[in-house]
Amino acid sequence: MEEQAKVRVVFRPDGRSAEVNAGTTVLEAARRAGVQIDAVCGGEGKCGRCKVRPSGKFSHQDSPALTDEDRRSGVVLACTALVQGDLEVEVLPRSRLGKHQIVTESVERPPKKARPWVRKRYAELSPPTLTDNTADLERVLNGVGWKGYEVPLETLRELPEAVRAGDWKVTATISNLDDVSGLIRVEPGDTSNTLLGVAVDIGTTTIVVNLVDVLTGEVLGTASDYNKQVSLGEDVIARMMHAEEHGMDELTRLARDTVNACIDTLLRRASAGGSRLTEWDVSAASIAGNTVMTQLLLGVRTDHVRLEPYVPVAHDFPTVRGREVGLLMNPNGSALIFPSRAGYVGGDVVADVLASGMHRSKGPHLLIDVGTNGEMVLGGKDWMATCSCSAGPAFEGGEVSCGMRAMDGAIDRLRVNDDLTTTYHVLGGGRPVGVCGSGLIDLLAELYSKGVIDRKARIQDSGSSRTRSSDEGMEYVIETGDRLAGGTGSDLVVTDADLQNILRTKAAIYGACSVLLRKTDHRAEDLSSIIIAGGFGYHLDIDRAITLGMFPDVPRKRYRFIGNGSVGGARLALLSERSRREMRSVVRKMTYLELSVDNEFYEEFSSSLFIPHTDTSRFPTAEANGPHGGAG
Amino acid sequence: MEEQAKVRVVFRPDGRSAEVNAGTTVLEAARRAGVQIDAVCGGEGKCGRCKVRPSGKFSHQDSPALTDEDRRSGVVLACTALVQGDLEVEVLPRSRLGKHQIVTESVERPPKKARPWVRKRYAELSPPTLTDNTADLERVLNGVGWKGYEVPLETLRELPEAVRAGDWKVTATISNLDDVSGLIRVEPGDTSNTLLGVAVDIGTTTIVVNLVDVLTGEVLGTASDYNKQVSLGEDVIARMMHAEEHGMDELTRLARDTVNACIDTLLRRASAGGSRLTEWDVSAASIAGNTVMTQLLLGVRTDHVRLEPYVPVAHDFPTVRGREVGLLMNPNGSALIFPSRAGYVGGDVVADVLASGMHRSKGPHLLIDVGTNGEMVLGGKDWMATCSCSAGPAFEGGEVSCGMRAMDGAIDRLRVNDDLTTTYHVLGGGRPVGVCGSGLIDLLAELYSKGVIDRKARIQDSGSSRTRSSDEGMEYVIETGDRLAGGTGSDLVVTDADLQNILRTKAAIYGACSVLLRKTDHRAEDLSSIIIAGGFGYHLDIDRAITLGMFPDVPRKRYRFIGNGSVGGARLALLSERSRREMRSVVRKMTYLELSVDNEFYEEFSSSLFIPHTDTSRFPTAEANGPHGGAG
Repeated sequence: MEEQAKVRVVFRPDGRSAEVNAGTTVLEAARRAGVQIDAVCGGEGKCGRCKVRPSGKFSHQDSPALTDEDRRSGVVLACTALVQGDLEVEVLPRSRLGKHQIVTESVERPPKKARPWVRKRYAELSPPTLTDNTADLERVLNGVGWKGYEVPLETLRELPEAVRAGDWKVTATISNLDDVSGLIRVEPGDTSNTLLGVAVDIGTTTIVVNLVDVLTGEVLGTASDYNKQVSLGEDVIARMMHAEEHGMDELTRLARDTVNACIDTLLRRASAGGSRLTEWDVSAASIAGNTVMTQLLLGVRTDHVRLEPYVPVAHDFPTVRGREVGLLMNPNGSALIFPSRAGYVGGDVVADVLASGMHRSKGPHLLIDVGTNGEMVLGGKDWMATCSCSAGPAFEGGEVSCGMRAMDGAIDRLRVNDDLTTTYHVLGGGRPVGVCGSGLIDLLAELYSKGVIDRKARIQDSGSSRTRSSDEGMEYVIETGDRLAGGTGSDLVVTDADLQNILRTKAAIYGACSVLLRKTDHRAEDLSSIIIAGGFGYHLDIDRAITLGMFPDVPRKRYRFIGNGSVGGARLALLSERSRREMRSVVRKMTYLELSVDNEFYEEFSSSLFIPHTDTSRFPTAEANGPHGGAG
Repeated sequence: MEEQAKVRVVFRPDGRSAEVNAGTTVLEAARRAGVQIDAVCGGEGKCGRCKVRPSGKFSHQDSPALTDEDRRSGVVLACTALVQGDLEVEVLPRSRLGKHQIVTESVERPPKKARPWVRKRYAELSPPTLTDNTADLERVLNGVGWKGYEVPLETLRELPEAVRAGDWKVTATISNLDDVSGLIRVEPGDTSNTLLGVAVDIGTTTIVVNLVDVLTGEVLGTASDYNKQVSLGEDVIARMMHAEEHGMDELTRLARDTVNACIDTLLRRASAGGSRLTEWDVSAASIAGNTVMTQLLLGVRTDHVRLEPYVPVAHDFPTVRGREVGLLMNPNGSALIFPSRAGYVGGDVVADVLASGMHRSKGPHLLIDVGTNGEMVLGGKDWMATCSCSAGPAFEGGEVSCGMRAMDGAIDRLRVNDDLTTTYHVLGGGRPVGVCGSGLIDLLAELYSKGVIDRKARIQDSGSSRTRSSDEGMEYVIETGDRLAGGTGSDLVVTDADLQNILRTKAAIYGACSVLLRKTDHRAEDLSSIIIAGGFGYHLDIDRAITLGMFPDVPRKRYRFIGNGSVGGARLALLSERSRREMRSVVRKMTYLELSVDNEFYEEFSSSLFIPHTDTSRFPTAEANGPHGGAG
């Protein structure tokens, strides 16, 4: 291999930089500099999300994803631009993975009494003498009155120092989770009032971590960040493809790094208040994620999840130790990994169920978690059925030209005025950059109610300047270029193609719900409650979602939002033995329906490619909000 | 630090070489070149055992350990000689740690039926389909019918590949030792007839490893080598001092490397016969060593063993995993570490007891293991008492000018003729280099029986040229310089000082045995058997040892030799659940006597500093062999 010259790439506006070999892509340079750039397609030059404006020495390829305006103003794709010499790179606002509106809150009912799987005991020992030369380990075990626990070699190595540093006053920590138990720490002195754990939600897009006092159940802090894997691919499919092509080591490392950065932040924040905390103080971890995220974190190959018959490596994931996963925690502490029902119904859904409490009452309840995939669980304490539909990334900012994630600059609520201009709310304030999932729902519902689009979501020529035809069909102008955040000057539009993608997403979600109901001989009216989990639900206008025919048309008061049920469920399992038992029983109870080979689903999906549905009788109240009814 | 020039040092006769910085000691250079040089004192310039003859650029310090003959012929100490430029170094025969006569055999009765803690099961699974998408792990566990075992992350990572490579025919291995159990391997195909383990004796001087078929109990091979730690200090005290001054990492690494080199040799030898074996095929390890060797292997600090009140880190050492210790075995396989009764009565003694079977009959039996330390166990199935005496390294080649270990070139059997010349046997054939432990016993007994030394082991002027006085007192010429292996020309002699060291060693051993008997109200005549364990006993003439007053004077047929009881006991524990239970109960049963603060011991020791004893009535048959009785 030829020796390559190192060159420096500086990213604006952050000012972060990296030294890389000439020939490296700008996207890779950004990764090394710690600058997060959106790359939906995993750096394949297809999605056009990683637009940057470099100045200096570089080469690049043209792409259909670039507009003429982009070309005029020197905008290129970071994934195909190669660094050739020292470079300064401006990351365009919409490409930047900036401060994200991550939903970290959940509303589950906390357990009455904390019953974590770690415990501490303090003991004052008598020092050894020539006539009592009992060994250190037996002295400690006798003192705290514990036996039958595995003693990791690391504990044994620390033991002689720990017992003597505390002048034979020691605090021992044991961990006892399923088949894994151990004396995981011996500390000098009395530390029995400090016992911490973390609850972790590993989302495809974002990672949320709670630092929890497991003695009291109190949440000491919350940290969240993008899953750093995003730079290697937007959705689980892209990540799995990346793993198959390039190996999974980097994906595993990026997920671990994200979690560890969050834990580090939490420990530093919590230390500011009192004694200095280290990773050794994190005695337990409870981790929920979808099957793919879980396997990538654990370093277990995912190709059998991606391919038929979509088999996860395990349903009940074994307990792993901190060291095995490289988490910033006691290396011998246990991490609970949420079990997975199927390749596309993972631990995050199980955690949602736990947080919702739907497994404790008769129901039937319908739980819907919409991300890039949509997962649904129907049932209650006696039975459950679950499925997953490939909703597509429309609501996460993918496959829609004006789409973006729910972060600063995103329109999350929107109204179409009578003159077809828009009034909207922008996350973080300021001028808009794009539209996030809840904004797209609003947009679709508003355009429908104003008659701008028909039942098939095709844009009608309104006569207004807001609707116009382009080379690629009709488009609707959401906002004019001059009123957008430091953009490229072009207008923010939604096209016919975009609207079809949004329509397909809503049809997949409704179709999946319908199949679950049909297969279990239920109707929407039978539902005791509909539980919306996940960040998407957080900003959502439920009336409009029903208007579009995305969610069943039942009385609004039956709808409940549980926020980030994944971290909420993880927290419950961290704290409560009962929740841990329920977690296992929920997975066993679930009947899984594989929609990819289900004709009924395709029928339901096709019938849902209308607003609200081909069978309008299913949406009596929605019809009242349509263009032929009253205003939205 | 200044940049140092690299120079090359070549060692003869091996021809091995190393590149080192100028200023490095020749001893260190030898270590890097993989040349074993004896260094009893751990490289402190005191013992004079590391004599070499360098030619080239070097500096060195004079030492009282060098003879005039050494100085004339350019002999220096490797530990104080500094490499200054390219160098060729001749390692003198006695300094060389060459092929050692390691006692690897033991005579324990093997268990009738092997009951190891690892098992294998073969299963033929049905492949997953869209209607049966049970995960890989649950499919395997259902197939083999095991549950409740920990699943290490490594097994989970290998699982998807293993089940598919074997076309859903797999063999699973579980390990279940005390508090540690796990599904440690899943292999494609049917490998259920191959299940291996190793039994390991970690001696201060030598390490012995058996490769064992744990299904049949058959020993597939034995490998042994010096404990590579020898280059950092001869005895356990020197090793602990080294650990305290320089940290223990290198000591831990050297012990591990020695064990792993033995396992590697065994695997390669065993593979030659059939299918290729790897460390993954070593599913279990059973390891016996003294407390210091055990803690150094495990990386647990030893200063509290060295200092009063001499406390080991544990009696029952926790089960460790292959990965934790870095052994060449399945990283998730369990290693059984023999328990330790006290700082100086360790797992090797417990293994001796197991191999001897003395814990199964009433007795009382007396077990004696003589190495650098002497350890004794008195008792039987109802009770046991044990102690350790600092025998000193006389029988291991230390503290005696003509002494050496039992390796090629060592006189192991010797007779003094009437004209005071000697007739002897040399290990490995050829000309002698020095005298090993059993040879020294012969020498002392023969000199006594010929009247060359008196009851206090002082050399008498015989009138023969074989006894003469030197600057340091009287000496006896064992062999003249011209008949020695390529030596420095000087005679092989034993001095008054040497004889006093040997006398002290025998007195310590007998004194310790006497104290055990006295404290338990027994006399030597009461002993059912006397069991001699360890390499020293292997070459020993028991009659002469009794003549000297080292061992109790009881009928010879009550003496039994069990050879390397440490590896024998380790093998029993590897194969037999009953032996593992007995191992634990033996440690609990043992009453430990701390001789270092015992006045009775000092009395007995002092009374034993005569041949055979101040109280000659204790040695009725010995008296018959003395100078006043018949010939030896």
